[in-house]
Amino acid sequence: MDFREKLLNIVHENDSLVCVGLDIDKEKMPKFLLDSSKQPYLEFNKAIIESTKDSICAYKLNMAFYEVFGKEGFELLEKTIKQIPKEIIIILDGKRNDIGNTAKKYAESLFETYEADAVTVNPYLGIDGVKPFLEYKDKCSFILCRTSNPSAVDFQNLKTQGRPLYEIVAEKIKDWDKIGCCGAVVGATYPDELKTIRGILGEDMPLLIPGIGKQGGDVEKTVKYGTNSRHEMALINSSREIIFAGDKEDFAEISRDKAEFLRKEINKYR
Amino acid sequence: MDFREKLLNIVHENDSLVCVGLDIDKEKMPKFLLDSSKQPYLEFNKAIIESTKDSICAYKLNMAFYEVFGKEGFELLEKTIKQIPKEIIIILDGKRNDIGNTAKKYAESLFETYEADAVTVNPYLGIDGVKPFLEYKDKCSFILCRTSNPSAVDFQNLKTQGRPLYEIVAEKIKDWDKIGCCGAVVGATYPDELKTIRGILGEDMPLLIPGIGKQGGDVEKTVKYGTNSRHEMALINSSREIIFAGDKEDFAEISRDKAEFLRKEINKYR
Repeated sequence: MDFREKLLNIVHENDSLVCVGLDIDKEKMPKFLLDSSKQPYLEFNKAIIESTKDSICAYKLNMAFYEVFGKEGFELLEKTIKQIPKEIIIILDGKRNDIGNTAKKYAESLFETYEADAVTVNPYLGIDGVKPFLEYKDKCSFILCRTSNPSAVDFQNLKTQGRPLYEIVAEKIKDWDKIGCCGAVVGATYPDELKTIRGILGEDMPLLIPGIGKQGGDVEKTVKYGTNSRHEMALINSSREIIFAGDKEDFAEISRDKAEFLRKEINKYR
Repeated sequence: MDFREKLLNIVHENDSLVCVGLDIDKEKMPKFLLDSSKQPYLEFNKAIIESTKDSICAYKLNMAFYEVFGKEGFELLEKTIKQIPKEIIIILDGKRNDIGNTAKKYAESLFETYEADAVTVNPYLGIDGVKPFLEYKDKCSFILCRTSNPSAVDFQNLKTQGRPLYEIVAEKIKDWDKIGCCGAVVGATYPDELKTIRGILGEDMPLLIPGIGKQGGDVEKTVKYGTNSRHEMALINSSREIIFAGDKEDFAEISRDKAEFLRKEINKYR
């Protein structure tokens, strides 16, 4: 089964475009868990997955939050991935990038060692650094196109050939999709740009859309401009607002409520 | 002691601008080691470090080659770093990049967990993704500017404001250096561009220069255009050509000969 098929299956089954970011963070974790559990982070992730798995289509694990724990972090990453039901999309968000023979090692690590369904890749090195990921035909590589952060404009909005750089990147992504399954990362914080990029990338390109909630992205516009004509092929990410919504014993139920709320909010506009 | 001072000290002590990439790779390792040793990669790295440490100024560890081994890879990374004498520069080459609160985790991981002296950072997200690294004032962040691979031109050479993008990135790097110590990654494969970038970045900016040897970069031009007026502030990297030069019991001596040859070749033009 290829990535797009797997994505559509779970989107239909759970009637959801919600992607939950499992971005563990000591400072934001429920204190009682840190005090009482021998494996607080794994216990936390297990509880969040168990409570939200029927409300979402994907989990995204940002590798920075695991890497910071050293080798134990990678053990935690492995164990967390094992908790995720097989039908749900797993995105390893590492924004990896390197020259060809080295990018190949990253692709091997993410797709084989950790068995991700999808990864995020930074395009600054051009196709050499992307191709080794695209060779995994049943997987998906979400290429950074227009990121959600304020200083994205430093380079991504510079005019080149009469258009902002992110449009040129989008054109390349469309081209690279002929080699292997591409997606694009486009922030919800810039709805007009999201609209333009969906226009360039067409109906079938999955978009990973961070930036709603605390970062300020609007849900209605995100759905309107980010999805395709069938209101699909978008994964709308929320991390902190869902997983760290509660800090007491009932944290997992509160996270489920938040994920359900976002699922319904998104579906209002589909 | 800050990064530039540490770099100058070891460059003077060893009279060397050579940076050796410890990019372990199962397919290129001496077979006898893989067959005979319980910890072949660690033993390999120890032997290479022991034999080359007087010929070089820095070791660069590309994280992809460690990450591919999963959690054992990060243990190996830690143990390898412990083998490197304190006066030698350690560069963790991960080309990391993310939005602010996440980039902070990467910076913590690389500078605190692994105690790197320097890292490589991808600039596509702008200053938000770079600043958390720059807050480690005694460390150095080498920002990707003009990479050594063929498809670097896909985006880095696009004309914007009448100049190629890599020049605009170089201007930003010079600006960011006011916040905290920046360096730049510039491939040896494009000597004219190396010259332009050194011109923009000025005397004191350390350049990390990959791309000599197999990738085709010329040593004379690299030294001429990549160093400053005192023939310093450049770290000229070689990985595979040095560490995998031999595959018998004497592999470490052969690597030392290769490193010494490169050191002298570089110094001919200083």
